Amino acid sequence: MQQSIALFVDKGYSATSIQDIVDALGVTKGSFYYHYKSKDALLMDIHQQYIDELLVRQKLILQEAAPAKDKLAAIVRLLIGDMEKQGPIANVYFRELRHLKEENAKTIRAKRAQFREQIESVLLSGIESGEFRKELNPKMIAFAVLGVTNWSYQWFQPGGELATGELAELYTDFILHGIVPAQK
Amino acid sequence: MQQSIALFVDKGYSATSIQDIVDALGVTKGSFYYHYKSKDALLMDIHQQYIDELLVRQKLILQEAAPAKDKLAAIVRLLIGDMEKQGPIANVYFRELRHLKEENAKTIRAKRAQFREQIESVLLSGIESGEFRKELNPKMIAFAVLGVTNWSYQWFQPGGELATGELAELYTDFILHGIVPAQK
Repeated sequence: MQQSIALFVDKGYSATSIQDIVDALGVTKGSFYYHYKSKDALLMDIHQQYIDELLVRQKLILQEAAPAKDKLAAIVRLLIGDMEKQGPIANVYFRELRHLKEENAKTIRAKRAQFREQIESVLLSGIESGEFRKELNPKMIAFAVLGVTNWSYQWFQPGGELATGELAELYTDFILHGIVPAQK
Repeated sequence: MQQSIALFVDKGYSATSIQDIVDALGVTKGSFYYHYKSKDALLMDIHQQYIDELLVRQKLILQEAAPAKDKLAAIVRLLIGDMEKQGPIANVYFRELRHLKEENAKTIRAKRAQFREQIESVLLSGIESGEFRKELNPKMIAFAVLGVTNWSYQWFQPGGELATGELAELYTDFILHGIVPAQK
């Protein structure tokens, strides 16, 4: 899976053949088919693994007895914090959904929606508790949070001028400032 | 170009052949080659057209004698405002850069960087004038602004519950709240 992710990032899913994957690993096609029924199945596995892990970790955050803004901050850190480790798989996940079979794409889209709706529910509970501005549109702000975090996978170079942890803090601050009421 | 954009959005650049494009138009390959030297050249044209138009329109905004926050708001509106018209071309632009020839990709990356750096300079001038919080990192905030706006191309359905103009206003408000100093 790791080798295929590297190839998909580099050449794209369509332009990568099973032959390319096994060549890069120095194994035979038989070993590929021992693990995966098809290139399709491999792509689905990559998508599942990525979103399932995020959902599990998000659930742990949601279960905590904490203010909405701490939960939101923890979700931002979850998304940005392990970009180093998760960068390549996320890259495939963000770009190749349209190459999944329709039934598989449906499954993944439903899980993505669930992740987003859970951000929305944190926003809503923060609006209700007065932590966040009452005029916010929680659905659109949930998309904005995902925009800030997911877009960073497009440009951020781990090991550059900023550590991922620093980026996560900058963005937590930016997002929270954008949604808390102006101080009296 | 429009027909090819529709096919690239649907099937991806790699999986779309010149034959697919001319078939969809009901013309011969000769007509394709009359306009473009290759599929590569067509893809470059799509990228150039998209970023060049944005740069021209951004320049008009920058030339105005207006506070930094009005300029930033105008740039957010520029990016979100004509998603209806620009959605498909933007979709190709965001996704297929890696399929450009290296020299072409370099040209496009330089123009993208210019667009982003000009957002950064608006942020910087707003920080200097006291309109924006002085502890902001203008480079990272410029990326965050692009995250919020560009990500909306991934999910926003024009003609849905919200008009593009309303989305632009929501996001202008969110971003400005995130960067102006807390009111005294």
